[in-house]
Amino acid sequence: MPRPVITLTTDFGPSSPYVAQMKGVILAIHGDVELVDLSHAVPPQNILAGAATLADAYHYFPLGTIHVAVIDPGVGTKRGIVLAELNGHRFVVPDNGLLALVARRGPPTRIVRLDAPEFWHQPISATFHGRDIMAPVAAHLSRGVDFDRFGPSQPTLKALDYPPVEDGANHAQVAVLGIDAFGNVMTNLEGDRLPAGVSELTLQIDDLPPRSVPVVATYGARERDELVLLVGSSGRLEIAVVGGNAAQRHGLGFQSRIRLAW
Amino acid sequence: MPRPVITLTTDFGPSSPYVAQMKGVILAIHGDVELVDLSHAVPPQNILAGAATLADAYHYFPLGTIHVAVIDPGVGTKRGIVLAELNGHRFVVPDNGLLALVARRGPPTRIVRLDAPEFWHQPISATFHGRDIMAPVAAHLSRGVDFDRFGPSQPTLKALDYPPVEDGANHAQVAVLGIDAFGNVMTNLEGDRLPAGVSELTLQIDDLPPRSVPVVATYGARERDELVLLVGSSGRLEIAVVGGNAAQRHGLGFQSRIRLAW
Amino acid sequence: MPRPVITLTTDFGPSSPYVAQMKGVILAIHGDVELVDLSHAVPPQNILAGAATLADAYHYFPLGTIHVAVIDPGVGTKRGIVLAELNGHRFVVPDNGLLALVARRGPPTRIVRLDAPEFWHQPISATFHGRDIMAPVAAHLSRGVDFDRFGPSQPTLKALDYPPVEDGANHAQVAVLGIDAFGNVMTNLEGDRLPAGVSELTLQIDDLPPRSVPVVATYGARERDELVLLVGSSGRLEIAVVGGNAAQRHGLGFQSRIRLAW
Repeated sequence: MPRPVITLTTDFGPSSPYVAQMKGVILAIHGDVELVDLSHAVPPQNILAGAATLADAYHYFPLGTIHVAVIDPGVGTKRGIVLAELNGHRFVVPDNGLLALVARRGPPTRIVRLDAPEFWHQPISATFHGRDIMAPVAAHLSRGVDFDRFGPSQPTLKALDYPPVEDGANHAQVAVLGIDAFGNVMTNLEGDRLPAGVSELTLQIDDLPPRSVPVVATYGARERDELVLLVGSSGRLEIAVVGGNAAQRHGLGFQSRIRLAW
Repeated sequence: MPRPVITLTTDFGPSSPYVAQMKGVILAIHGDVELVDLSHAVPPQNILAGAATLADAYHYFPLGTIHVAVIDPGVGTKRGIVLAELNGHRFVVPDNGLLALVARRGPPTRIVRLDAPEFWHQPISATFHGRDIMAPVAAHLSRGVDFDRFGPSQPTLKALDYPPVEDGANHAQVAVLGIDAFGNVMTNLEGDRLPAGVSELTLQIDDLPPRSVPVVATYGARERDELVLLVGSSGRLEIAVVGGNAAQRHGLGFQSRIRLAW
Repeated sequence: MPRPVITLTTDFGPSSPYVAQMKGVILAIHGDVELVDLSHAVPPQNILAGAATLADAYHYFPLGTIHVAVIDPGVGTKRGIVLAELNGHRFVVPDNGLLALVARRGPPTRIVRLDAPEFWHQPISATFHGRDIMAPVAAHLSRGVDFDRFGPSQPTLKALDYPPVEDGANHAQVAVLGIDAFGNVMTNLEGDRLPAGVSELTLQIDDLPPRSVPVVATYGARERDELVLLVGSSGRLEIAVVGGNAAQRHGLGFQSRIRLAW
């Protein structure tokens, strides 16, 4: 039988020893798990970007996978930590909106708020509940401990202040969810909200003049250095430069104001 | 029996969630594999650097290991994707020259061009064949599916436009294959092409004046801050600064023109 | 039975193919191990930072775990390589002080100096003993080969030139051990050396004027952008900015001179 899978998502940066501490805690409880780094490059304390990272990746894993995500600006305050089941997967996360985009595929079928310290790693630090609470709970869960032993049920998850796409008849304000290693900029606009067969959009970045940009099916469809829009592998609209870095060339970041019209 | 090993090489950047998506797809098909990140720091779309990364590392892995490499600037165009066997290892790669340096040890013994969508992950995106085609094919292969079920045979692989070492009696033009975390600069000059016992070379970088540089056996052989040449662990010539960063100090990058004479 | 765990710590940078080469060597000797990246972001050749990374993480792993650490500025010189047992864990490291902070919890119970090339990977390069000596020794050890077959006993480990905390009645000079992805700055001051219940300290950075800084239990206890001190998850004092990057804002790095008084 394949080993249970536990994925880890954090904003600790690539190759952080904090991630290894979490893995050590898990392996000391349950040595027979498959540990996978989902991402540790979530921008620090950016819950929205973390939510998008989770939502875009979790469903590729086997049903029953346990996903631990530590983007946790509220660590040490009164925010809760939850174990939740959504769409056949299990998540151990601070209750701060991190599951908001996963929940768009289907609401939680089960939520407990962690309050059973016998499943935690002692001593509990004030600053690293990922290691001291979330990792050991995931490990015990992977050994078959029942949901309801980790804490009391909770009816809902905290919502995320998800930047709305304010669209009218023919325009939308979009937010940046992520920027990949190529400089491609991921937005929160779902591709299926665009008019069928649309071949170009008007793109305005901050206070720069609006410009017409082609919507393409693939990067290879245009000449090198051309600015393009496409629905990426996540199903959402991306801003890209063929063979180049769109974020750098167009000054795009998480704070950019981006407006699209068609 | 040890689990089959699948390595992943991409230009997605360290800690990319795209890599995790590939791992999820693999684990959902075959949970009993050993997944190893070979490197995700290949410079974006740099096929030559990717080819060197693969060639320098694959042979340390057990015979039969499956290596998936996604440096794929042609994704979405008509370039093929192949499954190939070379030197006792198996590779799933776009057919764009990525295996050119592996093949210098020995030519492919078997090549098929992937065309059997029953082994792919649906739906197939236009931009991420690493996740949708290469990862699932590697997973099915690791379960024992026969080579010839993935597609028809193909006689050869696409060649790589590998920068030639134009050497005369006593000089060579070399290319940069990689720059490591210490700032050491890897070139494409094989160490065995140097005269036996050579103790110094004349090095010219771009249009700077040529300078004489010692060839050493190890970094520790010279004083801190000294520029040196050595045959690194890959068997190729490296440019290094003892205890320092050669790339930064000497302005070296993938575009540098480097000339050596002895 | 769970598989033996081997962790890897290096200064090779995130996603380095050199790390993968080490993993390949290990898996070719023993396929049934659990490989965990402890960290590959140790600042190049910074033995003190490597020692802190190891000491802060190793004890979270199961007893008997094998930790390989390659921060090895002396590679190719006469420095030895050792296999040592401390606090129930096993370590394969250059004998250069890397275990000094682990040893503060308890001295080595066993040390051998590696000199048995039948357990090494041939050929031995002059520049990468992590791959050619340390990785294969760890793999053979994980298969159950006895300590004393790897080399002769050695009574002690090389000490580390560990910056002393020169404290008087009410002040201390501290060193930077690490800087995390959030810009939090780890010092070498153990939290239990502070007066019980201390609520603020005087902090002086380089030649800047001393300033009074609150000691808090958690980041969330203060307003965004405030400079704070806290005993972090490692048990040592950290310098942090709430919701911000302390290293960048206050120009802190590994060379900073930091003075604390209370």
